[in-house]
Amino acid sequence: MITLDLILPDTRYPIHIGHGLLEQVDLLLPHLPIPKAAIVSNETVAPLYLHRLQQALGARGVACTSVILPDGERYKDWQTLNLIFDSLLAGNAERRTTLIALGGGVIGDMTGFAAACYQRGAPFVQIPTTLLAQVDSSVGGKTAINHPQGKNMIGAFYQPRAVIADMDLLETLPDRELSAGLAEVIKYGLLGDADFLAWLEQNMAALRQRDSAALQYAVRRSCEMKAAIVAEDEKENGVRALLNLGHTFGHAIEAGLGFGAWLHGEAVAAGMVLAAAASAELGWLGAADVERVRRLIAAAGLPVKAPAMPAEQWLKLMSHDKKVEAGTVRFVLLRSLGQAAIQAGLDTSLLERILLENS
Amino acid sequence: MITLDLILPDTRYPIHIGHGLLEQVDLLLPHLPIPKAAIVSNETVAPLYLHRLQQALGARGVACTSVILPDGERYKDWQTLNLIFDSLLAGNAERRTTLIALGGGVIGDMTGFAAACYQRGAPFVQIPTTLLAQVDSSVGGKTAINHPQGKNMIGAFYQPRAVIADMDLLETLPDRELSAGLAEVIKYGLLGDADFLAWLEQNMAALRQRDSAALQYAVRRSCEMKAAIVAEDEKENGVRALLNLGHTFGHAIEAGLGFGAWLHGEAVAAGMVLAAAASAELGWLGAADVERVRRLIAAAGLPVKAPAMPAEQWLKLMSHDKKVEAGTVRFVLLRSLGQAAIQAGLDTSLLERILLENS
Repeated sequence: MITLDLILPDTRYPIHIGHGLLEQVDLLLPHLPIPKAAIVSNETVAPLYLHRLQQALGARGVACTSVILPDGERYKDWQTLNLIFDSLLAGNAERRTTLIALGGGVIGDMTGFAAACYQRGAPFVQIPTTLLAQVDSSVGGKTAINHPQGKNMIGAFYQPRAVIADMDLLETLPDRELSAGLAEVIKYGLLGDADFLAWLEQNMAALRQRDSAALQYAVRRSCEMKAAIVAEDEKENGVRALLNLGHTFGHAIEAGLGFGAWLHGEAVAAGMVLAAAASAELGWLGAADVERVRRLIAAAGLPVKAPAMPAEQWLKLMSHDKKVEAGTVRFVLLRSLGQAAIQAGLDTSLLERILLENS
Repeated sequence: MITLDLILPDTRYPIHIGHGLLEQVDLLLPHLPIPKAAIVSNETVAPLYLHRLQQALGARGVACTSVILPDGERYKDWQTLNLIFDSLLAGNAERRTTLIALGGGVIGDMTGFAAACYQRGAPFVQIPTTLLAQVDSSVGGKTAINHPQGKNMIGAFYQPRAVIADMDLLETLPDRELSAGLAEVIKYGLLGDADFLAWLEQNMAALRQRDSAALQYAVRRSCEMKAAIVAEDEKENGVRALLNLGHTFGHAIEAGLGFGAWLHGEAVAAGMVLAAAASAELGWLGAADVERVRRLIAAAGLPVKAPAMPAEQWLKLMSHDKKVEAGTVRFVLLRSLGQAAIQAGLDTSLLERILLENS
């Protein structure tokens, strides 16, 4: 096991990465202010892992309740969030009862947001069960639900007390979900580490075959980069926005098709190709660079073309992006492969051209 | 006009108290990071004051949208909160668009919570239009909505950028709402200032007749006390809990009868009588003290008796109080008139006795 520390102005917490961590509740116990926990999971993950976690906690005297939500991005809404609150109140959860997110990005985002709001703030811990959650969404304290008109529109910056990434849990992950997680891994190479990008090109086959050492390195490197960026800019006043590479386009795809039609990672993958294409239009990347991005994304089993949507719909959806300032969408593009930068505003004609060519 | 400053570790903000402030948008403009605002009001307040505020802001180049919610505590829920989000998205509100709460405690709590959550945090300003909101709920950053099983169960600590208490707005306040606000004023005397309590006893008639100087002094003294307590303990780890005098009982009344049957201030009034009676049972207050509390609350036009509810229902409702620790309800009681203190746990028989005698 390796442990990274995310150090923030008001708090710090460990990110544990390794094997067999689910039942090592010694990692969890120091983060429970009282021996009461409420586990939030979904109907796919719960049958696999909930009982093991409950048993392990119960054996150490922790009183656990659990709530099992429907699985999928389309349930990341108020209605499903309320199921968490109903369950917390039915179980007499207190302000210091710890919420435990046992699931992927949707469960992590909703559990974190529920913890941020329950009695104005309860502790919570992330136990991510998907690659996407392990490399990205479980770290950094962004929590949210979707609004029909925009992804993650309603949420909070609210940090977990710990992140426990048990690599063994990835054994049950479907291939499509594995690929979706690789999109966020590729993102880290593209936005800030050309060496890691080259490593990914060399090791993509091993990653897709679930080579244990390769996966653990990918999780570790992604978490290191995320922790460093979040430590510098917790509330996204600057550099943290770079983590949104591919996400302005990706969120528009997710909202435009209806949440859940494409996985988040798939939408981000196509979004990163669009970002690369836009960067080439600005003269920041060459055609060969864009081709390299496309090849890596395809090698990860991810879409390189966005779904067809009218240009008007793209523009309207992107106008709700959280990075909009003074009516202008701020895009995360690539100065070079391994170096992202913000570009405020893109010509509508440029946007229409790259959308046409890449969807 | 007088201005108090609330100084917190991460922020500070002014509380302006005076006459004719609604249209003095110079008080507001420094707190708008961009010239865009979204005003949240209700169907009672909007016809009286919304147009004036919009005009004043528009004349200074601020683009305003507005959303008008139904009026009343029973609408302080997810569904109504979503009307705010729908309106923000329809109006292309950005992360730095300022939400303005123009209304009483319900509007302030919901607008603040919406601001806390919209795009993970937008700025907001409080323009309280009721006495209760001016003396208590608009100051200190507690925001929330209700859950059917508990008052203010879902919310955030999220501070406004400014509070603008225009005493002139109280002219249109119904008498019942004025009395409800006086409950929170009395609370400040009881919990921490025996001299203010004596002043209230002498000036209650003037307050109910809306004597301008008396009202302004009551607002000022209440805000001073609240600001001092919140400055010391923003997140309620200690002394801030004392502001909940009467509220554990009061919240149970509100949830038990259904939100809105009693006004919040009415429930708190009856709750303070119960707290005084419990304090007497512990030997902290004498019978004459309890009588003094009852007399002052009655003089304010407020109920001194709680509604009849089965003891079991009281206990269940109070078990969801946010001050519960390790299964024990922590009550705010009175060591003496003018000095509140926390008491963890009260005998069920004691509770049943005081509930029987005071309902």
